Amino acid sequence: MRLVTYRDSEGIHIGALKDSVVVLLDVIAPNMLTLIDGGDEALMAARDMLERAEVTKSVNDVQLLAPIPRPRQNVVCIGMNYVAHAVESNKARGLEPKLPEYPVFFTKAPNTVCALDDEIPLDPRVTQQMDYEVELAYIIGRGGKNISRNDALSHVFGYTIVNDISARDLQMKHQQFYKSKSLERSCPMGPCIVTADEIPDPGVLGIRLRLNGEVRQESTTGDLIFDIPATIESLSSGAEIEAGMIVSTGTPSGVGMGRIPPEYLRVGDVMEAEVEGIGVLRNRIVAAQ
Amino acid sequence: MRLVTYRDSEGIHIGALKDSVVVLLDVIAPNMLTLIDGGDEALMAARDMLERAEVTKSVNDVQLLAPIPRPRQNVVCIGMNYVAHAVESNKARGLEPKLPEYPVFFTKAPNTVCALDDEIPLDPRVTQQMDYEVELAYIIGRGGKNISRNDALSHVFGYTIVNDISARDLQMKHQQFYKSKSLERSCPMGPCIVTADEIPDPGVLGIRLRLNGEVRQESTTGDLIFDIPATIESLSSGAEIEAGMIVSTGTPSGVGMGRIPPEYLRVGDVMEAEVEGIGVLRNRIVAAQ
Repeated sequence: MRLVTYRDSEGIHIGALKDSVVVLLDVIAPNMLTLIDGGDEALMAARDMLERAEVTKSVNDVQLLAPIPRPRQNVVCIGMNYVAHAVESNKARGLEPKLPEYPVFFTKAPNTVCALDDEIPLDPRVTQQMDYEVELAYIIGRGGKNISRNDALSHVFGYTIVNDISARDLQMKHQQFYKSKSLERSCPMGPCIVTADEIPDPGVLGIRLRLNGEVRQESTTGDLIFDIPATIESLSSGAEIEAGMIVSTGTPSGVGMGRIPPEYLRVGDVMEAEVEGIGVLRNRIVAAQ
Repeated sequence: MRLVTYRDSEGIHIGALKDSVVVLLDVIAPNMLTLIDGGDEALMAARDMLERAEVTKSVNDVQLLAPIPRPRQNVVCIGMNYVAHAVESNKARGLEPKLPEYPVFFTKAPNTVCALDDEIPLDPRVTQQMDYEVELAYIIGRGGKNISRNDALSHVFGYTIVNDISARDLQMKHQQFYKSKSLERSCPMGPCIVTADEIPDPGVLGIRLRLNGEVRQESTTGDLIFDIPATIESLSSGAEIEAGMIVSTGTPSGVGMGRIPPEYLRVGDVMEAEVEGIGVLRNRIVAAQ
């Protein structure tokens, strides 16, 4: 299923996409997090409703929000998780092109999450070096602790796209990445969650980002240094990971910081973050008010 | 006021401490986060109830929980924010004793929060280098963006103590601090929130940690490199900070990693984290199940 959260004249709802209509799923759960909490039973009920498709709306009549508009905790991200990006990142910082030996986890504040078509404010008093990062993200469906890599994928509810907007100047200045990754609306997410059953192998998906129509990042998730099972094993080691947790798996090379000379985002730029089988997440940069 | 969250035979409640009794505040708000959301009006109502003290319980008859048992987002922490600790940290990692020029923000998962007297599990398969860090933490009362340092303290609801339990081996391996700071129960917090009106100057508080009765960390919050107003200004730059956000301000020198040779926490160790005017947060290390 392709699950969405959307707004219409009556409020905020969840639904499933079927061609060009949205099938309302509100009777199963009031929001995406409760649907996830409902486990297999809720998913089966949703599939049943999708099949019957009794209450529908045209996609054109609704406004899609981020599939999880407000996560229960920060969005976890993984830094330098594609070889070529790790090399370009270190090079841009004047460091040796060393690959990480363990996953590099950091987080984005939960109120940075925004939707496709949301405008991303750029405030030159805050950052002069805003950059894009297309990423495949996964959502935990069943929590757990000390999950082995063999079991890991059975804990995944589904997949979505994240554009991990990053302020490179703040990333250098503050050392740890939280601040540089948590500016207003710096986590566009969507357009939908594709449930795990429809992506049996998340390690073979094409991933790309177009800036003003030009391809800037292009790779496949097969190039991840730490694949999804490895990151679930690591995150859950000695720690409970919870249903609804969002983990963004890292970005391929081609970010603005890696260009010679570097090219950062400017007002009016349009980013299209795309992952095969999920969709396209388009956002425009605007001047901060 | 000294605000607490506690459990008794009837469930979980909020209250205010008055000598050796807790005055029930449930009629004002069902939990601490809603009390904070209620702003000045809720605080005035709470003060009024505390004065009348109609429904009370002996402190001995209740179990104190963390004042905010489940924050709405990760707990934000500040690394290397006392001069002597920044020096000992860099030295222990074989680096130059350089002070940060900008606050170093990272986060702990919200489900790491636990209470005084909670036992902290140590799993030698996960970490061999668990360490303590006593810290003064502040809680945002009124959200905002681009808050100036002059206005900053008016956004603070109150103060509490955090023991930022850290796995030093994971901190080195994973580079970014999220994983090493998010093991199970690695964020003891409490025993209460002291409201901001009772701590007019949070920059003059004694802070110490005793390990098995012996003083290991001892300083004052006047030694912070980035004081609370500076960190609020930085965190809110280009980003909305929200009511209920918890920010832990960093730890003084004297951590186990800084000793020669290093000494890490062992099963049976008892930590007492203390901040002047707030109280003592005691936790024991136990073997993980």
